[in-house]
Amino acid sequence: MKNNNKLHLKRLGIDTYKEAVVYMRKDCHVCLSEGFEVHARIHVALRGKTILATLNTIAGELLKPNEISLSEYAWQLLEAKENDIVELSHPHPLQSLSFIRSKVYGNALDSHQIQSIIDDISQGRYSDIHIATFLTACAGGHLSNAEVVNLTKSMIKAGERLSWPGDLIVDKHSVGGLPGNRTTLIIVPIVTAFGLIMPKTSSRSITSPSGTADTMETLAPVNIDIANMRRIVEQEGGCIIWGGSVNLSPADEILIRVERAMDLDSENQIVASVLSKKISAGSTHIAIDLPIGPTAKVRSLETARTLDTLFQIVANALKIKIAVDMSDGLQPIGRGIGPSLEAKDVLAVLQNQKNAPVDLRERALKLAGIILEFSPDVKQGEGKALATDLLTDGSAWKKFQAICLAQGGMREPTTASYTHTIRAKQRGRVAGIDNRQLSRLAKLAGAPHNKAAGIELHTPLDTMVEAEQPLFTLHAESKGGLRYALSMLEDISAIIQLELYE
Amino acid sequence: MKNNNKLHLKRLGIDTYKEAVVYMRKDCHVCLSEGFEVHARIHVALRGKTILATLNTIAGELLKPNEISLSEYAWQLLEAKENDIVELSHPHPLQSLSFIRSKVYGNALDSHQIQSIIDDISQGRYSDIHIATFLTACAGGHLSNAEVVNLTKSMIKAGERLSWPGDLIVDKHSVGGLPGNRTTLIIVPIVTAFGLIMPKTSSRSITSPSGTADTMETLAPVNIDIANMRRIVEQEGGCIIWGGSVNLSPADEILIRVERAMDLDSENQIVASVLSKKISAGSTHIAIDLPIGPTAKVRSLETARTLDTLFQIVANALKIKIAVDMSDGLQPIGRGIGPSLEAKDVLAVLQNQKNAPVDLRERALKLAGIILEFSPDVKQGEGKALATDLLTDGSAWKKFQAICLAQGGMREPTTASYTHTIRAKQRGRVAGIDNRQLSRLAKLAGAPHNKAAGIELHTPLDTMVEAEQPLFTLHAESKGGLRYALSMLEDISAIIQLELYE
Repeated sequence: MKNNNKLHLKRLGIDTYKEAVVYMRKDCHVCLSEGFEVHARIHVALRGKTILATLNTIAGELLKPNEISLSEYAWQLLEAKENDIVELSHPHPLQSLSFIRSKVYGNALDSHQIQSIIDDISQGRYSDIHIATFLTACAGGHLSNAEVVNLTKSMIKAGERLSWPGDLIVDKHSVGGLPGNRTTLIIVPIVTAFGLIMPKTSSRSITSPSGTADTMETLAPVNIDIANMRRIVEQEGGCIIWGGSVNLSPADEILIRVERAMDLDSENQIVASVLSKKISAGSTHIAIDLPIGPTAKVRSLETARTLDTLFQIVANALKIKIAVDMSDGLQPIGRGIGPSLEAKDVLAVLQNQKNAPVDLRERALKLAGIILEFSPDVKQGEGKALATDLLTDGSAWKKFQAICLAQGGMREPTTASYTHTIRAKQRGRVAGIDNRQLSRLAKLAGAPHNKAAGIELHTPLDTMVEAEQPLFTLHAESKGGLRYALSMLEDISAIIQLELYE
Repeated sequence: MKNNNKLHLKRLGIDTYKEAVVYMRKDCHVCLSEGFEVHARIHVALRGKTILATLNTIAGELLKPNEISLSEYAWQLLEAKENDIVELSHPHPLQSLSFIRSKVYGNALDSHQIQSIIDDISQGRYSDIHIATFLTACAGGHLSNAEVVNLTKSMIKAGERLSWPGDLIVDKHSVGGLPGNRTTLIIVPIVTAFGLIMPKTSSRSITSPSGTADTMETLAPVNIDIANMRRIVEQEGGCIIWGGSVNLSPADEILIRVERAMDLDSENQIVASVLSKKISAGSTHIAIDLPIGPTAKVRSLETARTLDTLFQIVANALKIKIAVDMSDGLQPIGRGIGPSLEAKDVLAVLQNQKNAPVDLRERALKLAGIILEFSPDVKQGEGKALATDLLTDGSAWKKFQAICLAQGGMREPTTASYTHTIRAKQRGRVAGIDNRQLSRLAKLAGAPHNKAAGIELHTPLDTMVEAEQPLFTLHAESKGGLRYALSMLEDISAIIQLELYE
């Protein structure tokens, strides 16, 4: 049957983030003949590539009668060029949406159903509303262990899966919520300097002021494709790149985008997200850093144990080895919170500077030790000492520079143009620090989008401060960002709790 | 403090349906100074009105450096004019989102929390992602009875609430899912001809091929404001208008828009939606038509009883009277499915035409009888006979025309330009009809957006048919719509089940 549903592409340059939107004149012949109405889902085809997009209609002269436009994300998915001719049609109903409705009503999903949902998400067939429905239906503990295993498997299957020579490919993940916890940038050079293989892919922030990929990006490029990743790992034994740029577990980045808007992290989603990324990257032995504290992401030992158990169950089902390290999450790690500020802490540790943050150094060495002990060549209990040697003798710093160079060249982290220092009103001892409030403040100042924005914390727990002594400094890249963050800063004593003394 | 975050409005005419979107150049001075990035939520102010909108950024020359644009919905909310100067700022975080996260994790919401969520939704402060999260968290039976009561109260409080003279204001609602169930258009003229007051507001379709407002709109205007609604009801005792145009329970229309994209109707949401609308309209006595069938919205007597109980609980808490009438929902009511086709059935009944669909007539009379019996002047058991008199003597038809005239003038329902008739392949008895499949087919043909689109069912249950006898006729307003619906029609015997006979 003849299909006359063709229109010429015109690039309007509208960036909707990662939602595929198609812009069509309300009165174009395709809308009229197909009965397309605003908000409809539309199937768009171009040179063998197809997408589903949500229709926004245009009243007026933004487009000519034979023209159509796409959001930048849709434009990229279709690899479109100006004036290309696209073909429009009604999409087949997505069967996987009925599986989500079934989940909403409390029914279990089987492996086929989960795969079908994840495949549709990975291929950009869901609108934001559909994704939010799926995430909410699964959050709050509504997935069984078997479902989390299947979700993880499905997320792996939906993307590339790397393999590396050898059967000991190490990796590490920190469950977020603890600002400034950038141990990865120290661990990778230590364990690769020893000779282990650590092809590290990291995520950008979901709800935190910086993700590891955001911090690394202030020091070297992190948008690296798989071919280049292979080259870097073959050459240096490791890398620190953004996972989203290598199509490992592609559903994950899409889910994270909507989770960020929802400001929601569920335990099931954490485990599936972390392990799908790691296993896709070809990892066989993974250390999980799990900080616990009243204002960290994991607030109680009980939740940490639930998460630990779930990690072990999924790891066993997927035949990999996991070591979960629970630790104190009472205060930020290092001084900086925000991409550039955290990178500066990392450099201080790698360069063995005298003023390097001791807590960041210690935590990185502990985790590096756990990873080194995955090696049959390292005795149990000797990992940390070995890691310390590799850091102090400069091997790790040399390796880090080599990795940055291999990723495209090392650079200096940027410095914010606008700062404001918050000072103590009286003498006292720092008795408590609210990590959530600190993170929120760093985000209000512009982190992680503005790389140099964030917070520099001057007074860790138990510091004795005098009146007028600096507690922390806000950094922002714009006057507006600084003003906004300050305007939201009502009660400093709720963030840094001072215990007065005589 | 000086705020220099001002830009000139340019109308691009982009219709996003009902999501507020703001379009700004990535490199405009406001994005740069405030650190606004794509997908950010932005506070937009104009002449004392404010909205929250999602940022889409523009690369290129669609806007000049000092220009900004809004989606048509945002444009309307702000009552904007070309070249108006709007002021942009970071929004305060919405506290109510944390209540939704708490609900996702299974915690109960108190009345204050629910009110805060509904107020934010009513005022357009949520993105589609937030609304989908809220709806999903509440669906699947995750609200307690107390929460449904509070949800209903909150939805009422968020909008206008009408009051009418007297303490007997009647109303009626059908829980959808049964195609063609347009009894409202017959009931209102009957009971108002008797002298009762029935200020009827109806909804447009959520997931069905037509809502009562969609069907009524083919006969008379339904977008009527409150002042005009009062005038019509004072004059005629009743009206049949679209609820969304009078700002009764404004959250409801917003929730319905997202539910439609999710293709999800939850029981809690049904009760809150129906009763908030009815009570806002000032009703005191309400008949609920609850058809039950394997392919109707309510599939089992058990679900019907749950719904009945929930209706009664919320009604008692809100001090109104409810009569739930459960009925057979095995097949469509009347012949037409889709706005215009249903309207033609209604006219046949009101005009006492010989070929009027008996089932539609009977059901309307039964429900009108129940409503008439709310009156102290009507004896129990005599309502239906009274309703029949008012229909057959022409009082109802006369009243219907008067109501249409008062609403802006009566009109003829439109007729579709493209039709295709599906015929029986062999002799047999119609042993089953799949309402869901019929509804889906009517929607694929373009209903309810295309008013004349839908299905005309020729053979109700138990009809004896010959080979080649017409089973149903598809109606579409466009070739594409007809072609599309036919292309999806794989297995006719799954829709109309024929039991063969010798």
